Amino acid sequence: MSDVLDLTRDLIARPSVTPEDAGCQALIATRLQAAGFHCEHLRLGEVDNLWATHGSGAPVLVLLGHTDVVPPGPREAWASDPFAPQVRDGVLYGRGAADMKGSVAAFVVAAERFVAARPDHAGTLAVLLTSDEEGDAIDGVRHVARLFAERGQGIDWCITGEPSSTAKLGDLLRVGRRGSLSGTLTVKGVQGHVAYPHKARNPIHQAAPALAELTARHWDDGYESFPPTSLQVSNIHAGTGANNVIPGELQVAFNLRYNPHWDAPRLEAEIEGLLHRHGLAFELRWHRSGEPFYTPEGRLRDVARQVLGEFAGAPPEESTGGGTSDARFIAPLGAQCIEVGPVNASIHQVDEHVAVADLEALPDLYQRLVERLL
Amino acid sequence: MSDVLDLTRDLIARPSVTPEDAGCQALIATRLQAAGFHCEHLRLGEVDNLWATHGSGAPVLVLLGHTDVVPPGPREAWASDPFAPQVRDGVLYGRGAADMKGSVAAFVVAAERFVAARPDHAGTLAVLLTSDEEGDAIDGVRHVARLFAERGQGIDWCITGEPSSTAKLGDLLRVGRRGSLSGTLTVKGVQGHVAYPHKARNPIHQAAPALAELTARHWDDGYESFPPTSLQVSNIHAGTGANNVIPGELQVAFNLRYNPHWDAPRLEAEIEGLLHRHGLAFELRWHRSGEPFYTPEGRLRDVARQVLGEFAGAPPEESTGGGTSDARFIAPLGAQCIEVGPVNASIHQVDEHVAVADLEALPDLYQRLVERLL
Repeated sequence: MSDVLDLTRDLIARPSVTPEDAGCQALIATRLQAAGFHCEHLRLGEVDNLWATHGSGAPVLVLLGHTDVVPPGPREAWASDPFAPQVRDGVLYGRGAADMKGSVAAFVVAAERFVAARPDHAGTLAVLLTSDEEGDAIDGVRHVARLFAERGQGIDWCITGEPSSTAKLGDLLRVGRRGSLSGTLTVKGVQGHVAYPHKARNPIHQAAPALAELTARHWDDGYESFPPTSLQVSNIHAGTGANNVIPGELQVAFNLRYNPHWDAPRLEAEIEGLLHRHGLAFELRWHRSGEPFYTPEGRLRDVARQVLGEFAGAPPEESTGGGTSDARFIAPLGAQCIEVGPVNASIHQVDEHVAVADLEALPDLYQRLVERLL
Repeated sequence: MSDVLDLTRDLIARPSVTPEDAGCQALIATRLQAAGFHCEHLRLGEVDNLWATHGSGAPVLVLLGHTDVVPPGPREAWASDPFAPQVRDGVLYGRGAADMKGSVAAFVVAAERFVAARPDHAGTLAVLLTSDEEGDAIDGVRHVARLFAERGQGIDWCITGEPSSTAKLGDLLRVGRRGSLSGTLTVKGVQGHVAYPHKARNPIHQAAPALAELTARHWDDGYESFPPTSLQVSNIHAGTGANNVIPGELQVAFNLRYNPHWDAPRLEAEIEGLLHRHGLAFELRWHRSGEPFYTPEGRLRDVARQVLGEFAGAPPEESTGGGTSDARFIAPLGAQCIEVGPVNASIHQVDEHVAVADLEALPDLYQRLVERLL
């Protein structure tokens, strides 16, 4: 068995369901320390974070990952135990195989090889791991980035190991992510009997024209390689079940995925303005779950485009699609950020897996990126 | 104690929560039979109905009422047991005191007195009672009316004892009721992730403009003394609770209260047309809970206006407001229908009550109506 496959299996066998680390970071720190890295354990709230560095000063290149995984769901839905990694027909199965214990193991192997070959490399090579990427993401990289800002810890480049590839390792380079903003709206009416509508104020009726305008709104045509900003209402609830009662309030939950045309404060102001214009009596709670980030053309994208092309045999698609990742917390420190990792087809599903050949290619891929940057 | 107070107490003491009769109709039938009425017990499904007649042929005048009551709710919310009638400060308390065991007792006393004084009156005086007015109302007067239509049982005038008065006995004469039509709408979309809206179809977004148009629609300006037709959305639900999932369908329940400008088939066609025009994929189930009825100027309204004026000291307001009543089933038989009863301020609430003075005036009121009609 190869080193990276071995380490990936050891990590999968630790059932680190978010926000548990289950000993993954201790195992990794032992290896990186042996390779000459300085390791700092940042236990924040209930969350384990590891900051391992080799070398010093600028430029600072960070390999960013997480050791936590999403829950596996019912054991019987899996062909084999999600926490007992198994190779079948050249494919490694287990929770976290693709998202992202394989990438984390490849980081370790790539970092060991790089510093062994280039002990006096320029700048700093760092590995940053958290156990709270899949969960609340409060005391994970969000919190670490705040500490870094206080310490003045600069970061030039950040490579996140999120599974970005779609059909073939290296076919997609993620160069940004949309922002995510959620709102919980309560429209206040006056409860009453349907037979006496003049004594009540129906919050569903009050809200309907505002919701029609809000959901029909065209926000933008996209930005660079970002898709257009989109608002989706995910939940709407009013009524007691009785068919003769006008409800007293309406609850609406919605989420925006937005590109760098927008930021959260401007979106919030737009939407509040629209609701006021419709004369609604309302309360609105906002949850800003991530500003967008975007890495324009530059050294990091250039290098990554070359390296991925060498692996995939063609230049990668450069995309800003998908959900959110921890890169959103690193980008505001002034870092260029990209995401490069294995094929994501099985993530968050039963029988999550990664091809052993892809897994064994990953350390080379990351090592080549590091070599060309430092 | 007076006869009517006595009988009302006896009826309240029978806990006839809908659709139970709890022996009320047997008690009443015993009295009416002793007075010379012919009594027919119509047990339909789980529901007791009583049809008691005196005299024969046209004109047929029906006193229409119900022996069932709405549930009392928690005992501890009441100042005294809802099924142990109690007089305090000239007011009788108990479930059904106002809606409508007081009226039913007054019917019995009025009928006894009338036939004693006028044993050879013209036409037929009838008392029709059900134990399913407050509930499903399937096997109550709806079913009885169907039997009457089959038998060719004509009805000229119908006086329902529903509590119609607002502040003072006799201050309001109900001469019609709006119709009630309910719809349960399911708008079909395609479930998906909020980050990939192009792969989903959000049924909330699809429905919003249709709901805005539907709830803003002006149906009419009223009809005679009817208020305008009104549509109210009572319930709206979509979403799993998760904020990142576009739901697959939206449920909407609504109810229309409509005047004789409309009938159920035309309303249904209008609304289905509107939904189709908005391009919605939907299912829609209709429940027609009552066509409207209206009694125009004529003998019954004339007589009632005079009699109520004698009791209240001023001509009554003539109204078509409020919910629905069993008169909706009698009107289609060709009958003129009115509703006259005690003050309705406490109905369906805790500590339901009727003033003893009003209760004791009711038999005279009903007797005077009967005398002037037969």
